[in-house]
Amino acid sequence: MRELDYDVAVIGAGTAGIAAHRAATAAGARSVLIERGPGGTTCARVGCMPSKLLIAAGAAAHAARTADLFGIRVPEVAVDGPAVLRRLRAERDRFVGSVLDGLDDLPEGERLDGTARFEDDRTLLVDDATRIRFRAAVIATGSSPIVPGPLRGLGAFVLTTDTLFEIPDLPASLAVLGAGAVGIEIAQAMARLGVAVTVIDAGDTVAGLTEPDLAGQAAAIFGAELDLHLGAELRKAVPEGDGVCLHWTDRAGRERTTRAARVLAAAGRSPNLEALRLEATGLCLEPEGLPAFDRRSLVCAGAPILIAGDVDGWRPVLHEASRQGGIAGANAAALAAGRPVATPEPWTRLAMVFTHPQAAVIGAPYDPEDDRRIVGALDFSDQGRARVEGVNRGGMRIWADRSGRLLGGEMLGPAVEHLAHLLTFAVADEKTAQAVHGRPVYHPTVEEGLTSIMSKMIQRS
Amino acid sequence: MRELDYDVAVIGAGTAGIAAHRAATAAGARSVLIERGPGGTTCARVGCMPSKLLIAAGAAAHAARTADLFGIRVPEVAVDGPAVLRRLRAERDRFVGSVLDGLDDLPEGERLDGTARFEDDRTLLVDDATRIRFRAAVIATGSSPIVPGPLRGLGAFVLTTDTLFEIPDLPASLAVLGAGAVGIEIAQAMARLGVAVTVIDAGDTVAGLTEPDLAGQAAAIFGAELDLHLGAELRKAVPEGDGVCLHWTDRAGRERTTRAARVLAAAGRSPNLEALRLEATGLCLEPEGLPAFDRRSLVCAGAPILIAGDVDGWRPVLHEASRQGGIAGANAAALAAGRPVATPEPWTRLAMVFTHPQAAVIGAPYDPEDDRRIVGALDFSDQGRARVEGVNRGGMRIWADRSGRLLGGEMLGPAVEHLAHLLTFAVADEKTAQAVHGRPVYHPTVEEGLTSIMSKMIQRS
Repeated sequence: MRELDYDVAVIGAGTAGIAAHRAATAAGARSVLIERGPGGTTCARVGCMPSKLLIAAGAAAHAARTADLFGIRVPEVAVDGPAVLRRLRAERDRFVGSVLDGLDDLPEGERLDGTARFEDDRTLLVDDATRIRFRAAVIATGSSPIVPGPLRGLGAFVLTTDTLFEIPDLPASLAVLGAGAVGIEIAQAMARLGVAVTVIDAGDTVAGLTEPDLAGQAAAIFGAELDLHLGAELRKAVPEGDGVCLHWTDRAGRERTTRAARVLAAAGRSPNLEALRLEATGLCLEPEGLPAFDRRSLVCAGAPILIAGDVDGWRPVLHEASRQGGIAGANAAALAAGRPVATPEPWTRLAMVFTHPQAAVIGAPYDPEDDRRIVGALDFSDQGRARVEGVNRGGMRIWADRSGRLLGGEMLGPAVEHLAHLLTFAVADEKTAQAVHGRPVYHPTVEEGLTSIMSKMIQRS
Repeated sequence: MRELDYDVAVIGAGTAGIAAHRAATAAGARSVLIERGPGGTTCARVGCMPSKLLIAAGAAAHAARTADLFGIRVPEVAVDGPAVLRRLRAERDRFVGSVLDGLDDLPEGERLDGTARFEDDRTLLVDDATRIRFRAAVIATGSSPIVPGPLRGLGAFVLTTDTLFEIPDLPASLAVLGAGAVGIEIAQAMARLGVAVTVIDAGDTVAGLTEPDLAGQAAAIFGAELDLHLGAELRKAVPEGDGVCLHWTDRAGRERTTRAARVLAAAGRSPNLEALRLEATGLCLEPEGLPAFDRRSLVCAGAPILIAGDVDGWRPVLHEASRQGGIAGANAAALAAGRPVATPEPWTRLAMVFTHPQAAVIGAPYDPEDDRRIVGALDFSDQGRARVEGVNRGGMRIWADRSGRLLGGEMLGPAVEHLAHLLTFAVADEKTAQAVHGRPVYHPTVEEGLTSIMSKMIQRS
């Protein structure tokens, strides 16, 4: 057994772990980064990047098919499935490669391959071959797709984002379980690539939208491109010929069946905790096994251990994982050195879905009960630039307090990924509708839609 | 002769004039809006909107032709010229219609059709049929495309933006004089619609970019799609068969000729002043005939007359015209009532060009002589999201003072119309690179390119 001693041990070399190791090192700590898999981050390997590449291909097919609106005649559009997936993997591998290059650049002694488990509050065992003494540890082990009970045991018929992007060709049909960000992004892209797609979700909303008008519009818009069933419960799934037959009940309780060549389980992810043996530590574990932790310092209760990234289940998106990693790494170094930890303000919430139209939720959640709010609305159907581009669908809802200070909003529409950043920055800056309204906005842009909402909110405040 | 009396007379019912009339009325003045033409604003009728509609069609053709990158096979793309122009005009007419509806809604007595000219500092004659006494007047007569000497007398072979959007079909070939915003937007859109396009410009830059790296990239990128000649002087133009032969000299002084079915004069606009008979007023006229005016109050020197919008030649873009109209209208009402005028800060400069890639200039101009600046740079070629979408061309240059306070920048790249708003808001808010860097930015978006520049600037400040 090799015995090593570090100030900080970071478990997991994904987005959060890499950031944590870098921050701990920058804060003067001797840190080691431990990774059990091939590395490369969930985002680059199986998350943001390959899904965006699939969406780009779907968008290209859709643009060619709908060019007629503009007077462009495209008599034939053929999707070359293997070519779509080849480009996806080539670009994906490039993104993964640049992450791995970063890891390879780490000096000898800062990186360890193997599966880590806790022996106690100060010790990790890696593959039963190395014992690491640490003063503080960061858990950054990420999460894995959940395969719900009815889909287990169906072998290669069932895909998750871990396996989806490795398929050699597009399936003829795909059932997607889950209409959240991951499910609806992939479902719409696949539909635009000619795959017959059915989406089943037990909940009532699509793409994470909660404001009822926008959520309803989203369901109608996506439902026109694919077979979308909300309030639907999967009962069982049985192999049938070259695919699977899903048995489910619809919102009205009727029994329904759907046949599909493949099923994508996209109804959630669970934290990668099982290998860590957290019960060997003094950590206070919540019923689901997650350590209790402070959302500002990311320090867990009961041991000098911190948690960051998707594993903590709080805001599982890259920019938060990266920031959490930085905070946890710096605080781990502080704990190791006996310095006080930092407790930075959480960022303004920002989540987006790269469908067409795109969706985003920003800042304070939608709250119909809060009657002290001013709510401004815009319908994209008559927004100038959106009409020009033929993408005039969806809308925006933005809320402010009575003084006009912006609190948050939800969006469904064109270029929402950009509008959402403008609103997020404004909310983070505690700006008022009046302040945003007073800024120059070029014509014709969708940003004018924001100005227009601000103008309505000012009239009401 | 009908005799009328108003507090404020606004000449020109375009973007600036409509805003001026509304602001004067809102400030309690009795105002009249005088228009000599059919109305409908330069922007909606012959500017922003029809050009963006042409660009949307060009982009649709280009997207279909380049879908192969994503594995989408499109064996044939045909441009239906009349259909392209039909959609353009139908949507354009809708935008114009909504402007006209607004004018029609004006109460009786607030609108007058006819050509106005000054009798003196307090009096206008409209079509020699109505005499209007005013306490303050606003000149908002807009501008018209300049047809340079060599192109005069060529009749229908020569187009301006006033006539371009009325053509029944796309020409086989088009020579464009001018590589500024208007010229390069239309040139690239036409090229993407299958028109053989030659662009000639006497200057050295394309799309208004002045930072040499970006300007050079822009020339190379656009030059790959069309025949682009900078530093080229038009000498003469002669009708030849079904088109025109342009004789010009290139940068090296060589004589060159270009044959084209049509020529678009897009090398500038001149203020619509000739009908106003400004010499009848006490206005201090500059050598080119424009009244001297204060850029904050928009009050002209020598008479109770204000100027707003494209006619003043300062920032001839819609959002400035609209704001200038509002300022001039309110200040005209103030002058009429003997109140002091307001002198609001000019807006942070924002200009953009809707080519692909898009271009924008923001805030303080590029200044290679200012060695107290920190300049941050980003190359889009390796920017993650730009690569995903296959639009990884161009770059950004952003400048700040030594303390990191953002001053301005230039951009050439994907989604620049959105990135430019983020930077403009930050410059207007006098934010530092550090402050912008501390904001949440979603992954993968081109906004991460901004964060990346901020990070480099922080290291240098």
